[in-house]
Amino acid sequence: MVYIGIDLGGTNIAVGAVSEAGSILAEASTKTLSQRPFEVIVKDMADCIKKVLVKGKIALDDVKSIGIGIPGVADSDSGIVLNCTNLGWVNVPLRAEMQKYINKPVLIENDANVAALAESYVGVSAGCQSSVMVTLGTGVGGGIVINGKTWPGAHNRGGEIGHMTLVPDGVPCTCGNNGCVERYCSATALIRMARQECYSFPQSAILQKAGGDPDRINAKLVIDAAKEGDAPALRVFNTFVRYLALSLNNIVAFFDPEIIVLGGGVSHAGDFLLDSVRALLPRLQMFKSLPGPRVELARLGNEAGIIGAALLGKNTYV
Amino acid sequence: MVYIGIDLGGTNIAVGAVSEAGSILAEASTKTLSQRPFEVIVKDMADCIKKVLVKGKIALDDVKSIGIGIPGVADSDSGIVLNCTNLGWVNVPLRAEMQKYINKPVLIENDANVAALAESYVGVSAGCQSSVMVTLGTGVGGGIVINGKTWPGAHNRGGEIGHMTLVPDGVPCTCGNNGCVERYCSATALIRMARQECYSFPQSAILQKAGGDPDRINAKLVIDAAKEGDAPALRVFNTFVRYLALSLNNIVAFFDPEIIVLGGGVSHAGDFLLDSVRALLPRLQMFKSLPGPRVELARLGNEAGIIGAALLGKNTYV
Repeated sequence: MVYIGIDLGGTNIAVGAVSEAGSILAEASTKTLSQRPFEVIVKDMADCIKKVLVKGKIALDDVKSIGIGIPGVADSDSGIVLNCTNLGWVNVPLRAEMQKYINKPVLIENDANVAALAESYVGVSAGCQSSVMVTLGTGVGGGIVINGKTWPGAHNRGGEIGHMTLVPDGVPCTCGNNGCVERYCSATALIRMARQECYSFPQSAILQKAGGDPDRINAKLVIDAAKEGDAPALRVFNTFVRYLALSLNNIVAFFDPEIIVLGGGVSHAGDFLLDSVRALLPRLQMFKSLPGPRVELARLGNEAGIIGAALLGKNTYV
Repeated sequence: MVYIGIDLGGTNIAVGAVSEAGSILAEASTKTLSQRPFEVIVKDMADCIKKVLVKGKIALDDVKSIGIGIPGVADSDSGIVLNCTNLGWVNVPLRAEMQKYINKPVLIENDANVAALAESYVGVSAGCQSSVMVTLGTGVGGGIVINGKTWPGAHNRGGEIGHMTLVPDGVPCTCGNNGCVERYCSATALIRMARQECYSFPQSAILQKAGGDPDRINAKLVIDAAKEGDAPALRVFNTFVRYLALSLNNIVAFFDPEIIVLGGGVSHAGDFLLDSVRALLPRLQMFKSLPGPRVELARLGNEAGIIGAALLGKNTYV
């Protein structure tokens, strides 16, 4: 059988046909144009599926299910998107709407959970009984996989690692709280901290790389400066790593997964980030003589969205 | 069949025979006298089991298993106690030692997990697919139950809610870190905060109840003063509740269990505590319009230790 996976983003919709083994057989994409009514967007998604089937020479009868990863909160039981800020969707009956065009089982879930699922099937956490994926991008997302199934939580509000409180009364967050993990461990946080550092240390390589313009500072540039040994950049990077390690240690202390997978844009810092986190995390853990979770970088990149969404067809938590 | 449950504490060892339905048929207890070699303590445990069988008129053939809840880290696979500070145990082969006396399956696990399991079978979380128990005592403990099985974590270091970081660089903790949940949400924390408040407000009812001696302040006395409306006590209590709600919200954001169960000495504050937590927690949660976990008080009290340990005999996470 073939599983359709859809990575529904605020800008693009990527659709793929995925094999039992978890590899992409054919794919296509279309613009989201999120201002349009959801009915039109879903019709585009359905058309895109049909395009993929033609491309991959796949008969509709061979399609087992359609999985959709959404950038928000999904009710996997009812197939309703409860809340999706990027798209302005509230209580959108995504499953029912899709089934108007293609009558197959439609499974929906949060995109970070879906990425975690993909890694746990064919990525770095393959074969692990439990894994937690932490995506370090513009925000911080998270997904939990237990015994090969995603764990969206009892009310579909789990995995929101970015909105665990790290610093009570800390930096105000878009969610209305203060001091969320996302305000200290995202690319956005790295940029904020770098800008602050550059006010005090304008000679920093960060600012040089940004052509002297603090508004042009981005995460890659901060990490590049740190890699080159620029002292202000290293201070920012080390502060970032400490906050990240504290956040990961909270996951270890509570849940103790077999493996923690780091994904998202900041994870492209590669071993420079990984080695630092691996050095610090064990020093924060209780029972220091006991083993703890491995920390690894995600392997699948953008494909995780399609593959994980497709694998929802194999994913029913029992 | 009958399941033996043992609650191994630093002071007392409580042993009970528990029915399939989770009720205690007979029990007995003995002093731990933890300075003694573990071999002697385990022999006492075995003798205590035999006493319980006689008391309950239970044949050894009817005993399915022996479960032991320990105040530390257990390797449930090998039956070895990895680390148990109270008893000074490191790598103690508890299962093997017990089986020298009684040749039955011996299952061991952390006592907070065991209490969470008991509540999820015959207590307040019965029938819930997922639950997290938080025990607010001298320290803060935690236990996770998923689909009727305890979740000790992949390396038996899960459920350590008391050692999640709540305040980076906060109050030093016995574990070597700073700002652990346990330093803000335990009876010990309530007492510390009350003493500090009484330095500034010596007219507080807290100090009156303690006969003017800050060393005699305990958690019950602080809560009693707060219930009576004493302003300094209410400030301490509200601060405590805020830290607790932040800690619980971190559990919700990450794991989103169906229910959170509050146990331990501080939970004896009853509805006064529960109502305050229930009022604050939803205001911290993301997606405020969506439902979240119920918060309830534990029901089983001290019996949870015996019942939960016994139920380990039914508890193999698949």
